[in-house]
Amino acid sequence: MAQSLCFASDNWAGAHPTVMDAVASANLGPAAPYGEDDWTRRVEKRVREVFETECAVFPVTTGSAANGLCLTLLTPPYGAIFTHEAAHIQTDECGLPEFYTGGAKIIPLPGAHGRIDAATLQTAIAGFGHGPPHAPPPSAVSITQSTETGSVYRVDEIAALSEVARAHGMGLHMDGARFANALVSPVSAGASPADLTWRAGIDALSFGGTKNGALAAELVVIFKPELIRDFEYRRKRVGQLWSKMRFLSAQFDALLADDLWLSSAAHANAMARALADGLSALPGVELGAPVEANAVFAALPEGVADRMRMAGATFYPWATPGDRFGGRLNRFVTSWATQPGDVAALCDMAGRLITGG
Amino acid sequence: MAQSLCFASDNWAGAHPTVMDAVASANLGPAAPYGEDDWTRRVEKRVREVFETECAVFPVTTGSAANGLCLTLLTPPYGAIFTHEAAHIQTDECGLPEFYTGGAKIIPLPGAHGRIDAATLQTAIAGFGHGPPHAPPPSAVSITQSTETGSVYRVDEIAALSEVARAHGMGLHMDGARFANALVSPVSAGASPADLTWRAGIDALSFGGTKNGALAAELVVIFKPELIRDFEYRRKRVGQLWSKMRFLSAQFDALLADDLWLSSAAHANAMARALADGLSALPGVELGAPVEANAVFAALPEGVADRMRMAGATFYPWATPGDRFGGRLNRFVTSWATQPGDVAALCDMAGRLITGG
Amino acid sequence: MAQSLCFASDNWAGAHPTVMDAVASANLGPAAPYGEDDWTRRVEKRVREVFETECAVFPVTTGSAANGLCLTLLTPPYGAIFTHEAAHIQTDECGLPEFYTGGAKIIPLPGAHGRIDAATLQTAIAGFGHGPPHAPPPSAVSITQSTETGSVYRVDEIAALSEVARAHGMGLHMDGARFANALVSPVSAGASPADLTWRAGIDALSFGGTKNGALAAELVVIFKPELIRDFEYRRKRVGQLWSKMRFLSAQFDALLADDLWLSSAAHANAMARALADGLSALPGVELGAPVEANAVFAALPEGVADRMRMAGATFYPWATPGDRFGGRLNRFVTSWATQPGDVAALCDMAGRLITGG
Amino acid sequence: MAQSLCFASDNWAGAHPTVMDAVASANLGPAAPYGEDDWTRRVEKRVREVFETECAVFPVTTGSAANGLCLTLLTPPYGAIFTHEAAHIQTDECGLPEFYTGGAKIIPLPGAHGRIDAATLQTAIAGFGHGPPHAPPPSAVSITQSTETGSVYRVDEIAALSEVARAHGMGLHMDGARFANALVSPVSAGASPADLTWRAGIDALSFGGTKNGALAAELVVIFKPELIRDFEYRRKRVGQLWSKMRFLSAQFDALLADDLWLSSAAHANAMARALADGLSALPGVELGAPVEANAVFAALPEGVADRMRMAGATFYPWATPGDRFGGRLNRFVTSWATQPGDVAALCDMAGRLITGG
Repeated sequence: MAQSLCFASDNWAGAHPTVMDAVASANLGPAAPYGEDDWTRRVEKRVREVFETECAVFPVTTGSAANGLCLTLLTPPYGAIFTHEAAHIQTDECGLPEFYTGGAKIIPLPGAHGRIDAATLQTAIAGFGHGPPHAPPPSAVSITQSTETGSVYRVDEIAALSEVARAHGMGLHMDGARFANALVSPVSAGASPADLTWRAGIDALSFGGTKNGALAAELVVIFKPELIRDFEYRRKRVGQLWSKMRFLSAQFDALLADDLWLSSAAHANAMARALADGLSALPGVELGAPVEANAVFAALPEGVADRMRMAGATFYPWATPGDRFGGRLNRFVTSWATQPGDVAALCDMAGRLITGG
Repeated sequence: MAQSLCFASDNWAGAHPTVMDAVASANLGPAAPYGEDDWTRRVEKRVREVFETECAVFPVTTGSAANGLCLTLLTPPYGAIFTHEAAHIQTDECGLPEFYTGGAKIIPLPGAHGRIDAATLQTAIAGFGHGPPHAPPPSAVSITQSTETGSVYRVDEIAALSEVARAHGMGLHMDGARFANALVSPVSAGASPADLTWRAGIDALSFGGTKNGALAAELVVIFKPELIRDFEYRRKRVGQLWSKMRFLSAQFDALLADDLWLSSAAHANAMARALADGLSALPGVELGAPVEANAVFAALPEGVADRMRMAGATFYPWATPGDRFGGRLNRFVTSWATQPGDVAALCDMAGRLITGG
Repeated sequence: MAQSLCFASDNWAGAHPTVMDAVASANLGPAAPYGEDDWTRRVEKRVREVFETECAVFPVTTGSAANGLCLTLLTPPYGAIFTHEAAHIQTDECGLPEFYTGGAKIIPLPGAHGRIDAATLQTAIAGFGHGPPHAPPPSAVSITQSTETGSVYRVDEIAALSEVARAHGMGLHMDGARFANALVSPVSAGASPADLTWRAGIDALSFGGTKNGALAAELVVIFKPELIRDFEYRRKRVGQLWSKMRFLSAQFDALLADDLWLSSAAHANAMARALADGLSALPGVELGAPVEANAVFAALPEGVADRMRMAGATFYPWATPGDRFGGRLNRFVTSWATQPGDVAALCDMAGRLITGG
Repeated sequence: MAQSLCFASDNWAGAHPTVMDAVASANLGPAAPYGEDDWTRRVEKRVREVFETECAVFPVTTGSAANGLCLTLLTPPYGAIFTHEAAHIQTDECGLPEFYTGGAKIIPLPGAHGRIDAATLQTAIAGFGHGPPHAPPPSAVSITQSTETGSVYRVDEIAALSEVARAHGMGLHMDGARFANALVSPVSAGASPADLTWRAGIDALSFGGTKNGALAAELVVIFKPELIRDFEYRRKRVGQLWSKMRFLSAQFDALLADDLWLSSAAHANAMARALADGLSALPGVELGAPVEANAVFAALPEGVADRMRMAGATFYPWATPGDRFGGRLNRFVTSWATQPGDVAALCDMAGRLITGG
């Protein structure tokens, strides 16, 4: 693969070759549709092993769909969902959660590094509205792991959020579009998939595959048995039931086999770490957030980002109105496909442009 | 009418006798249903005179329904509605706006005294999400007049919000559950109903009657002709089309005749002013918000509110987590039915309890 | 009251004077809003006595809202509701049931005189779709009592439908906009309110008041305790929770006191019987349906209906494409307000026009 | 490929090797997500050539999603959609159309061979409900091409339906999950893709790829420019916007290149024709419907179907309650993957079991 200066997002990457091979290999004669196939069975079994529990597992196409379906299980149509103000479900799904749930309300909360903390959550719930039946009842909490700003919730942070949620009879959802990156992060050292999810109180997980090497595959993983009941109907009626499901399941089958999902995520994280180190060594560059997964937020000297883009690099500006970087913050995302040479090339380019070399 | 210590809300009051008489007077033989009656015609005509424009006028039962229907005209089901974080549509309608609109997202904004200002709105719109089709497109702004904290938007404030909304192609809704109280407020001196609404850029108004002496009557007033098109269907399908509509329209017919709506609101405002003056003259009492309409927010010395309630007064605590009053803030609402003697009695009671007299 | 030739619908009638007096009498000083009042308590108590069971009782404004709310309790948003093809929920509510339920599908069934029978229902359920999760799961059956064509379900017919519904795990709803007329019908002789509803398997009833003398009042009556759980939220979020609820409840309070609801319905039914007898005695007039409640369907000789309307009579044409009357069928509805003289006058008019007298 | 006795559905087949190769070939380095890629551009261009018009083209994952999205463009949330009672949108999408449209009502119509005719449509529209705003306004007509019972609408039939739809201001949708099979059918001889769609009045087409050799790919094709406006938002908010869109578009890119979509469909149709001929030549076998595309409906002698299944053949019973075959009807579907030897083997098996050979 040729050198790439693409750090725009992990969804710009292609599919991991092993995943693509698995899809091609699934193309053998007829197979029962709608999930009654061997690939889907194998994924279900493997996910239960990975999470060490009898969870339910349903493949879907997009992360937004996975999130919306999970939330539908946790809130009535008139309920309130508490989440971070930068959460994907709040800012990037064009109202899908409101639509899928039949009208639930999302309450956005502040929080450093894309994480909400238990105290903020507790205060927000306690202060919301004037009681039933006027205020939408607090019904669910949704957290993103790893977060939209590249940080990772600690196990005890999740447990603390879960405690607040439980105390109010609320469900707890994890948007794990980058769950693998969070799991293999140094800050999760020693934590198993179970520790990061159901053992810490997660009821339903959007388990991401697309950003980690799949073509388009996410899993809805339901840890709370009573939530499973009518999920098949719910997936069907939102338009997410593939007839040739094997081609969807085969992607996750490949990711889970030989722990490809873990090694790919670990590689992406390592590339982010290297990129962060490389960029922050440059004069005038400042990191805007801790680097705990596969995203790097870096403020570059005035004008440098534009010149890097003109020179062929791809990455997004990530300014927040009023942040301390005066519009100079940018986001760089690495993936399974990022090569050490790509990182080095980007840092070199930045260095040259900054030092005028 | 006996003396009352009820300051809980203007919806605890009964119906103004003139309104009740009008309803009884409408009970004469058969009449065409669903709004094809003389009372509804008269209300339409009178509202157009009041607002000096050819607006469309539709009676409905509840303020929540009026708000939801107005918003449905202004946003697609995937749009974003910007409003104050304390707005009724955000905290007190059990998700009705999300439901009626088919899933629009409400973005809550901070703002002093329940009002949002144009700069805050501009920043929030500019900073929301990552562009189409990911972020719900900013579609509508909703403001409450008078606000949930008893203040009143100035005409130029509304115009400034409208300018921001226009610049982004968004519609502007006014929740006027207490529109009359805002109109007759000293801060609106010289402003006509038209000045406070369409001339300042309002597209659709929830024109409240219930809190101003009706049994249960609100009007949806649509100022922008192109929004009217399918309103009849929309009202029907949310369950708000009365068959015996005359009994709904007769309420507003009475309110609008002889400007009863204005005199009732002016009376309520005057009672609030008197109450504010009476309470704030007591030692240890502090007003929590400017008194511009018919609500008084007052912090009482520790323990006094509880003892007032035990002694028969009715009013709600109104603490916000972290406010500067440490939980001592209370809301007192006056109405067309509040008597000067009621105000005096409440102030006397508070005074005795505070001074231990 | 002057003589009236209005037979257009029972919702053209005004409110019964006793009901109107009750509303006016409820207008005494402040009262707790949202149903925390004495009138609502009394209605709940009285309805439980009438139905001889611990049902839940919730006042709402319109019959469409009552129907939609009942259905929301019985079907998931992706479920199928089986009903008669002429049912109000299918043809006259502008999609409200689909909207309130979040998208449930209505399956219209044929049936003589507006009634569906158990065999038709059984066949329709058995033949619908290709199983889960593709076909919407059969979730509810809705019947209208008395029907849109003026007939009345027999207790054993309801029980038979209930048996089919039960066998498929479906709920059973009764649209009782004219429940009183069905109850006092000769064909219900000996049956109590309980016999016609929960004892025959009805889970939730829309108990109509508006067509029987109220201004605008219907009750949602829930017989199955596990369905009640979140009804308060559901009513609120569709915009049907009155703040000044006493004025809604007072209407039913008056209807139920002294069995006004029964005497009014019995009167309306008697007027329909008299009208049917009078019209059918005329040459060339043919009844189009059995007269079992307060509606008369009569085919008039060509041109007569138009001339009656020109002469001031009010009633609707009721032709069905392809019916045996060639467009000559009309519907005449009587109410609590219909007077014997009105009936006589209408028959006289028809007689004169038919015989050219 | 080994011999297969699978005639259960064209969605049991795998992906066409050429399609699979194209997907693998698209896996080259980073590409802009969300449709900003070369594959998607190429598909748009090619579809416009195929249909000879400047239509809008949007790839989605499932046929149900394509149908629901098309309908959302054609009906308001309270509108009525008229379709055949056996239509996929009515019986097989778990209420997705009602959900996507926000509550539109589907009116099922009868019709021979899965087709509705213009007269039936006209009568149904004219006889539906009691006018605005009570009846959901007739808003859209949806037809399936080829139909669920293997027949094909003639161009003039579509034009006649379109004329009725136009006359009532309704849109016209074609569910073309098997559009290719309809186009290459002998009954469409001489008709172009344009003739079968927009020239005959189709506003929006679900253009199927999955059943014709794709992994999971359908196109929404919008012929009416004013319907396109907000489609990007609509696709996103139902969860159908792939980030790695190239892998979705590449499937259609391969199908459209070298007219693979036509040759594959022609092959499937030919296999159905051969199967129909083979089966109908057997004693006691009767065809239940004309064979015009890639489905064969055949009534087999009592017990034969069960024994064929025990012997390894796969196909579905397709009895309709009360049909003339007494439960003996079965559906056999062919695909791009069906081999002449498969057809021969199935006919041999049936022959042996029937004749006891």
